[in-house]
Amino acid sequence: MRRTHYLRSCSVSRVGRGLKVVVVVGVAGVGKSTVLSHAREVLEGSGYVVETLNYGDFMLRYVVERGICRSRDEIRGLPLSEQRRIQSLVARELRSYIDSLPAKYPGSDVVVFVDTHAVIKTATGFWPGLPEYVVKELMPDTIVVVEADPQSVVGRQSRDSSRFRGDYSDVGLVREVMEFIRMFSVASATLVGASVSVVRNEEGKAEEAGRFLAELIKRL
Amino acid sequence: MRRTHYLRSCSVSRVGRGLKVVVVVGVAGVGKSTVLSHAREVLEGSGYVVETLNYGDFMLRYVVERGICRSRDEIRGLPLSEQRRIQSLVARELRSYIDSLPAKYPGSDVVVFVDTHAVIKTATGFWPGLPEYVVKELMPDTIVVVEADPQSVVGRQSRDSSRFRGDYSDVGLVREVMEFIRMFSVASATLVGASVSVVRNEEGKAEEAGRFLAELIKRL
Amino acid sequence: MRRTHYLRSCSVSRVGRGLKVVVVVGVAGVGKSTVLSHAREVLEGSGYVVETLNYGDFMLRYVVERGICRSRDEIRGLPLSEQRRIQSLVARELRSYIDSLPAKYPGSDVVVFVDTHAVIKTATGFWPGLPEYVVKELMPDTIVVVEADPQSVVGRQSRDSSRFRGDYSDVGLVREVMEFIRMFSVASATLVGASVSVVRNEEGKAEEAGRFLAELIKRL
Repeated sequence: MRRTHYLRSCSVSRVGRGLKVVVVVGVAGVGKSTVLSHAREVLEGSGYVVETLNYGDFMLRYVVERGICRSRDEIRGLPLSEQRRIQSLVARELRSYIDSLPAKYPGSDVVVFVDTHAVIKTATGFWPGLPEYVVKELMPDTIVVVEADPQSVVGRQSRDSSRFRGDYSDVGLVREVMEFIRMFSVASATLVGASVSVVRNEEGKAEEAGRFLAELIKRL
Repeated sequence: MRRTHYLRSCSVSRVGRGLKVVVVVGVAGVGKSTVLSHAREVLEGSGYVVETLNYGDFMLRYVVERGICRSRDEIRGLPLSEQRRIQSLVARELRSYIDSLPAKYPGSDVVVFVDTHAVIKTATGFWPGLPEYVVKELMPDTIVVVEADPQSVVGRQSRDSSRFRGDYSDVGLVREVMEFIRMFSVASATLVGASVSVVRNEEGKAEEAGRFLAELIKRL
Repeated sequence: MRRTHYLRSCSVSRVGRGLKVVVVVGVAGVGKSTVLSHAREVLEGSGYVVETLNYGDFMLRYVVERGICRSRDEIRGLPLSEQRRIQSLVARELRSYIDSLPAKYPGSDVVVFVDTHAVIKTATGFWPGLPEYVVKELMPDTIVVVEADPQSVVGRQSRDSSRFRGDYSDVGLVREVMEFIRMFSVASATLVGASVSVVRNEEGKAEEAGRFLAELIKRL
């Protein structure tokens, strides 16, 4: 019996096994989806099952199925109290879905990416995407903040104006939103003991960022 | 039946109706009261009932009525644990008062401004004005952070030294306090799912800031 | 009966009496231990009983006694979920210990320093040292953030590389970690209504910083 080695790696070491919930946030135009798809590829190559859940999609489906709204723009037009109620109900649905995954993939190491926002810029200010009643349902192991140079974020937004509708047209505002994203992520992480990981997505290096994120998740 | 229009504006749309709780914070000398009185004027002009509750006034009345202290300065001299206890009891009183408003103004759209501080600078550091046990009583829809150029804040403080007692005499300290105000506001907002709204009060433009705040509240 | 004086100092004034819990955080290399030992000296000179509890030591003892790990490095190798579980159990042990102190030192004014981290830099990001389940056990009166010039922090780390293992080798990273420490401290303080105190430890002035900290604690 190699007792020494046993002790060195600790008796409970099961790094990266089981079900990991990874919340991924970042300002619009930071390249979150691209980084996520690269990370997914690496993880699947290493035998992980990866599911990506988009919070906005779940919210949209929720309101459409109930005939409340028909589009994301309509959701944004709802009073904050109503958006909050839907946000909270969707968090519970996501939790149920996450809880069903071990039975769906028995024996597998499962990574759930929850693609969402730490901050939703509304007409009434910066609204938290991970308030207590959401983050305590999701119970993430880590909150990944994808960041990039503010200048390149503005560039990506203007190149894809149909998608981003020029939300953050100047570098100063992008920088401010990025600071709020960090603060909101920290506040949410503190409620559940999750780590906050900053993943840099440098111009033209999304693959590298994806690999970095995948390696980080393997060590969770 | 104009079904199309019905759907476009969403079936539950009641933006700005009912009772809205708006917590307003900002560093001393930022011009919070002036902005608030302008916003109040605009809202009342649009048919809203507006009540402004000053947290400090409620705390003072609480301690004076019970013979605990006679002035704000005396409250500041209390041990932190005792200030915390009073702060918490006052939060409950404010909640009771807010709960009584719909019956007081039946059928009206009511806006409650809670004029308070996100950060109270004490001899023992930056003390949160909206800790969990306060913010969960108030349950604000939004936390409004009134900001201004740090240099102009210092100017206003020095012009009205009797009121501000030179608390933040230099620009660096004002800037630091302003950063802490953002952080504390974000932490509190995360606990209740409130938005954080930054309202800029530029020198000589308090009326504009007030209008901006009023419009923001109409969309809550 | 000097009623006036009685009122001026408030009827419940017991500043600095009883049991005070002071959580102390700061980036590695900031000189936290030195500042703490100076503050301890001043407080003991003024008749206080001071106990310093090191969170890391408690965690190490916990895992060693149960045969889970043998060293701090091994703890770092545990999966985050397991570290979190141990972190939470240790918080409860610390609380029990703190609760036993009034009986141990009857009639004394006791200050408990909890020497810990607001942010633990791990391979999976910045992990909160004071998440909700920890800070609500400790219930600190204040969270003291010891800060220094980032350049001098890097200098101290490189002079004592065996201890700090070059964790933060450049000024930019130290500055970033220091910002996260402030954010995490604010988020934790908001959960319990503790103040956040920044104590500057300038190069060669640890004694002064210790005195400053001691005076601050006397006013708690």
